[in-house]
Amino acid sequence: MNKEILLQVHTRIKPYIHRTPVLTSQLINDMVQAKVFFKCENFQKMGAFKMRGAANAILSLSSDEQAKGVVTHSSGNFAQALALAAKKIGVKAYIVMPKNAPQVKKNAVKTYEGEIIECDSNPIAREEMAVKVQKETGAKFIHPSNDDAVIYGQGTAAMELLENYPDLDYIFSPVGGGGLIAGTALAAHYFSKYCKVIGGEPINADDAYRSLLSGKIELNDSTDTIADGLRTNLGDRNFPIIKKYVEKIMRVEEEEIIAAMKLIWERMKIIIEPSSAVAFAALLKNKSDYKNKNIGIIISGGNVDIANLPF
Amino acid sequence: MNKEILLQVHTRIKPYIHRTPVLTSQLINDMVQAKVFFKCENFQKMGAFKMRGAANAILSLSSDEQAKGVVTHSSGNFAQALALAAKKIGVKAYIVMPKNAPQVKKNAVKTYEGEIIECDSNPIAREEMAVKVQKETGAKFIHPSNDDAVIYGQGTAAMELLENYPDLDYIFSPVGGGGLIAGTALAAHYFSKYCKVIGGEPINADDAYRSLLSGKIELNDSTDTIADGLRTNLGDRNFPIIKKYVEKIMRVEEEEIIAAMKLIWERMKIIIEPSSAVAFAALLKNKSDYKNKNIGIIISGGNVDIANLPF
Repeated sequence: MNKEILLQVHTRIKPYIHRTPVLTSQLINDMVQAKVFFKCENFQKMGAFKMRGAANAILSLSSDEQAKGVVTHSSGNFAQALALAAKKIGVKAYIVMPKNAPQVKKNAVKTYEGEIIECDSNPIAREEMAVKVQKETGAKFIHPSNDDAVIYGQGTAAMELLENYPDLDYIFSPVGGGGLIAGTALAAHYFSKYCKVIGGEPINADDAYRSLLSGKIELNDSTDTIADGLRTNLGDRNFPIIKKYVEKIMRVEEEEIIAAMKLIWERMKIIIEPSSAVAFAALLKNKSDYKNKNIGIIISGGNVDIANLPF
Repeated sequence: MNKEILLQVHTRIKPYIHRTPVLTSQLINDMVQAKVFFKCENFQKMGAFKMRGAANAILSLSSDEQAKGVVTHSSGNFAQALALAAKKIGVKAYIVMPKNAPQVKKNAVKTYEGEIIECDSNPIAREEMAVKVQKETGAKFIHPSNDDAVIYGQGTAAMELLENYPDLDYIFSPVGGGGLIAGTALAAHYFSKYCKVIGGEPINADDAYRSLLSGKIELNDSTDTIADGLRTNLGDRNFPIIKKYVEKIMRVEEEEIIAAMKLIWERMKIIIEPSSAVAFAALLKNKSDYKNKNIGIIISGGNVDIANLPF
């Protein structure tokens, strides 16, 4: 891993992603007493940063591999991202989803021409089904977060942010499966002299916080959080990067996530999903430690059911 | 009125406004089969284009006039806009609001240090109270839409849009009191050779549509529309401009407004108020007439109660 690889990844995926805008708010700056720069991946294609990693993972395959397609298991943003990236690159995508996944999520994958393969709603069933699809089709399995190409792809959001604002002291990122924060940490390491990366995590799914404390991958006991993108566990590819390059992980309560989300909706007039609010909630909670700093926040996505809001 | 005046207005108000971004969506372009450019005044200071006209109206006063302050009657975006613009320019603002106006709107005006004067909730009472304030304080009355300086100020949104996209064939604007669409029509007339301006109006408050048909200012019989910014009537300053320079006004049903609003929220991940969705709803309804055209849409604002959504 080095700086050159990240630059190559960015060049490779550029035709398939948006360079998303960075927004600021005077009111939020006054409230936090710092300068806050929101990298708006909610405006990314299919509405989340996952498009970056998905595109890079597919583009990293050989043409022989690409010809056989890709497969993942996800009922969230990565399912849509892999389907859309595959469609744009001209590759077949198989998406293993639980039978009881919401119809709206299945429809989104179908819109992007992904082939849905249903399985029972438990981790073992979905892994078995993904293996079955691999065997039958020869498709390459792409993990949503524990995959080097995915991690590098996700890191390009922070690269762009640092290109626009090289003087950032900190970047806050949400922590779910670990792909985004690992990529962000690599980007900060290679493209800034002093920018530190801090994770925000729901206290109700704080596997990464506990993993950094214990030094080994801990699992979530509960995943009872509104931040549905952050219920997954870290993996052996991203955890070493997180351990090495992430400054710390700060935990937030459910009501702090909702308050941060509401603040961004009302004051910035942008739609962000609960997972996206977690990093900003961590900053709000600890704002006295970051006075007068330049702070980037990765707004990870905007895919939320607007008929079912927490406020 | 001429091109130079609009250029001066823009220069004059620049320190007090944001140059708002123009957003696009591939999905919406595909859906409409045209290129659509959304001028995002929901990202304007205080959340709506009204800031432009309010700032210009105050800046157009002499220093003697400014010293005595400004007064308006409004319970909507213009109240907040005048209060904020006055605060930034260093002028006193008196805002006449009905006693029963929502507390959240009163609070917003107070945040911007506007002095609220309460009145009974009817048009006569609020005009009488505004006259009383004028007499007692010497403050200058600024009408929210029927005022030349306000009209020119509102026109700067379309000026900026045409500066970014000089090849627009049409600009769609919502029609309420008429200030925004009159300013937009002037901007298109002076800064484009062929761009036509089209209004979108709720069928339930279609005074402007009927006024263009009859050639004189018609009043609203009902104002039963979710687009609360569009319930007001045209005035004698803006109607002649609308009559001369607006191509036509197209009416939309309530459910079309809500569907257009939902589409923009879900697909563009931005928060817009119902009034803002009316112009886009008019385009959606009549899209077959605008195939392959370059179309600007003025997204007028984003101040909406997120705890009370129509979906």
